[in-house]
Amino acid sequence: MSQFSFQLEATDPETGARAGTWTTPHGPVQTPAFMPVGTLGTVKGLLPDQLRDAGAQMVLANTYHLALRPGSEVVRELGGLHRFMDWDGPILTDSGGFQVFSLAKLRKMDDEKAVFRSHIDGSLLELSPERAVQIQEDLGADCIMCLDECPPANDVPEKIRAAVDRTTLWAKRCRDAQKRDDQALFGINQGGIDEGMRTRSAEALVPLDFPGYAVGGLSVGEAPADMYRTLDFTVHQLPEHKPRYLMGVGRPVDILEAVCRGIDLFDCVMPTRNGRNAMAFTSSGPVRLRNAVHIRDESPLDPECDCIACTRYSRGYLRHLFAAKEMLGGILVSLHNIRFYQKLVHDLRIAVKSGTVAQFRANQLARWNAQP
Amino acid sequence: MSQFSFQLEATDPETGARAGTWTTPHGPVQTPAFMPVGTLGTVKGLLPDQLRDAGAQMVLANTYHLALRPGSEVVRELGGLHRFMDWDGPILTDSGGFQVFSLAKLRKMDDEKAVFRSHIDGSLLELSPERAVQIQEDLGADCIMCLDECPPANDVPEKIRAAVDRTTLWAKRCRDAQKRDDQALFGINQGGIDEGMRTRSAEALVPLDFPGYAVGGLSVGEAPADMYRTLDFTVHQLPEHKPRYLMGVGRPVDILEAVCRGIDLFDCVMPTRNGRNAMAFTSSGPVRLRNAVHIRDESPLDPECDCIACTRYSRGYLRHLFAAKEMLGGILVSLHNIRFYQKLVHDLRIAVKSGTVAQFRANQLARWNAQP
Repeated sequence: MSQFSFQLEATDPETGARAGTWTTPHGPVQTPAFMPVGTLGTVKGLLPDQLRDAGAQMVLANTYHLALRPGSEVVRELGGLHRFMDWDGPILTDSGGFQVFSLAKLRKMDDEKAVFRSHIDGSLLELSPERAVQIQEDLGADCIMCLDECPPANDVPEKIRAAVDRTTLWAKRCRDAQKRDDQALFGINQGGIDEGMRTRSAEALVPLDFPGYAVGGLSVGEAPADMYRTLDFTVHQLPEHKPRYLMGVGRPVDILEAVCRGIDLFDCVMPTRNGRNAMAFTSSGPVRLRNAVHIRDESPLDPECDCIACTRYSRGYLRHLFAAKEMLGGILVSLHNIRFYQKLVHDLRIAVKSGTVAQFRANQLARWNAQP
Repeated sequence: MSQFSFQLEATDPETGARAGTWTTPHGPVQTPAFMPVGTLGTVKGLLPDQLRDAGAQMVLANTYHLALRPGSEVVRELGGLHRFMDWDGPILTDSGGFQVFSLAKLRKMDDEKAVFRSHIDGSLLELSPERAVQIQEDLGADCIMCLDECPPANDVPEKIRAAVDRTTLWAKRCRDAQKRDDQALFGINQGGIDEGMRTRSAEALVPLDFPGYAVGGLSVGEAPADMYRTLDFTVHQLPEHKPRYLMGVGRPVDILEAVCRGIDLFDCVMPTRNGRNAMAFTSSGPVRLRNAVHIRDESPLDPECDCIACTRYSRGYLRHLFAAKEMLGGILVSLHNIRFYQKLVHDLRIAVKSGTVAQFRANQLARWNAQP
C-alpha cells in the first residue's frame, strides 16, 4: 500500500473543505477531484486525450458492466483496464453491487452473496465480496471498492440497519480477499439519512483501517437537503487523513456543498449523460440546446469556458447537431460539461488554499440561481 | 476566379495518373485528394482537428441536407459553412440534386426544376439550377456543383440522353446564376456508361469553361468494370489543366483505379459509414471488428497505420466497443478509415511523382486481394 499516500494541503476552518494530493500508482490526483464515468471502459464518445485536456485526472469504470462485457478475464488478458482503455492515469472501479441492486434482476441476496440475472442476456450470476475483489483485481484499477449493500433512500429502519451490518461484514471479507498490494481498497459507509445508522457504519468500518472511505447510499432518491445533512453528521466520523469519496454525486451544487462538508472525490454520469441529451452546465446555469431560441444564436455556449465546444462553435451549430441527431453534439457538450465539472473542483481547490471558500460558494450559488 | 488555380505537377505517362496542387480561397489541396463527407456540416463523430491529423485537406458537405436542416440562410447567418462547422480548409458542396432524386420523394421534374417532398417532414420544396446555386452561395463552400440529373445505372438510352441534355441546360443556368466570384462552380459530366452519351455531355460542357469538372452518375449500381471503362473513355475528354472530380466514389480499389485513369478528387461516405458499422479498411484488406475472433486479440487493427485507433488500442478493445454499442467504436474506426484513405491518396501522389504508379497499383491490388 506504500504506493498510496494522501497529503492534506489545506482545510477551510469554517466549512471543513479540503485541498490535498492523493498519490496513486498511476500518478497524483489533486483533490477535490471529479472522476468522469467510463462505465464500459470508455467515457462515452470521448478519447483519453480529450479528458486530460479537460482537466480530468482520474476516471471511474463500472465493475458490473465490465464483468458482463467483455468479462474481467478478457480485460486482464488484454493488459488490464489502463492498457485496455488507454488511460494511464488513476482509475477507480466500483464493486458492482450498486448495479446488481439497481439494474440486474436480483434473485436472492443473503449474507453470503447476491444472485442475479444479467440485464444483457438474463444469465444467472453471483456476486460475493470475494468475487467483487477478484473481478476488480482482474480489472486492475488503482482504487477498488468493497462490496456493499445500498438500500433505497426510503427503506424502513430495520432494512437500513441490516444493510449497514451486511456492508460491514462484507467489508471485512473484501479486505481479507484482497491479494494485490497495488490497489487501494476503500470501505463504504452506509446508513441512509439516519445519523445513528451512519455512526454505526463508521464505527464498524474505521477500525478496519481502509486506505480511504466512501460515502455510499446517497443521491438515491432523498432530497438534497437530506443528503447535505447526512454529510454533516457522517464526514467528520471518517478519518481525517484519508481520502473521502462521495459515490455517484452529483449536480454541480451537490459537489459544491459536499466539498464544503469535507468530501474529496466525486463521480457522476451527469456531465456526459446530460451532454448527450443536449443539456449543458454553464457559468450562468443550465442551457438546453434543443430549444429553438438557439437556432440563429452565434454566441458561444459558455463565454467563460475554454473548451472546444465553447471556443470554436456557436450555440446555433450545437443546436443544429442535436436537431439533426449528429454524434458530434453529444461529444462536444459532454466535453464541455466535463470541463465545467473539472473547473468547478479546481476552483474549489484554489478557494480552499486561498481561504475564500465561503465567498466562492456564495458567488457560485448566486450565479447558478440555486439554493442548496 | 483568380483565387483558384490548378498546377499539374506530374502525370504518369502510362496510366494518366496525376499529381497536382489545387489552390482555393481556403488553402491548397494536394491531389489526388479524398474528401471525407460531412453531410450535415459534421463528419460524423469527428472533430476538425482529428480530420486534419488524419491528413484530410478538404471536406464535403451536402446541400440538400443542410438546406433542410438548419436551412442555408441559417448557415449564412451563422457565418457560412467554414465558420459554422469550424473547418477553415477548403469545402465542397454538392448541388443537392442527387439526394432529391435518391432520398426525397420526387413529385415532378421538368427542364425548369424539380419539385419534391422533404424526407424529414414531407414539406413540398423546389430545386432549380438557380436555387441550387443560391443555396450553395449561402453555404459558402469553396467549390460548388451545378445541378445535374443523375439517372439510375440501368436507365434506358433515351432517359440517359435526356438527363445529359438537361444537365447541360442546367449547367448553363447555374453558370449564369452565379453571383459570388470566390467559389469554383464545377460542371458535371453525365451519360451513364455509354461512350456516346459521355462524349455528348463532355462536348457540351467543356465549351462552358468551368474551372473544374466532375464525373457524375457513376457508382450508382453499375459493375466496377463498367465504371472503370466509362472513366477510360470519359476522363480524357475533360480539360487537362483543370481538376477532375469523381463524385461519390468509392472503395479503396475504385480510388486506385480512378486515379490511374486521371481523376484528382474523390468523396465517399464509405470510410465513416463503414467505420460506424465496425468495418475497417486495413493494409491487408477489410477487417470486421464485430467478429468474435477479435475478443482477446491484443494486436492493433492495422500494424502499418499511425492513427490513434491503431497505435493506442487493441482489436479486442475495439471489438468490445462495438459489442457494447459504445460511440467510441464508430469514432475510432471512422478515424482509422479516413486515415487509411488519406494515406492511399497520399501514397498515390508520391507514386505519380516518383514514376512508380504501375508498381504501386500492382502491389496494392495484391495486398488487398482485389481485382479491378
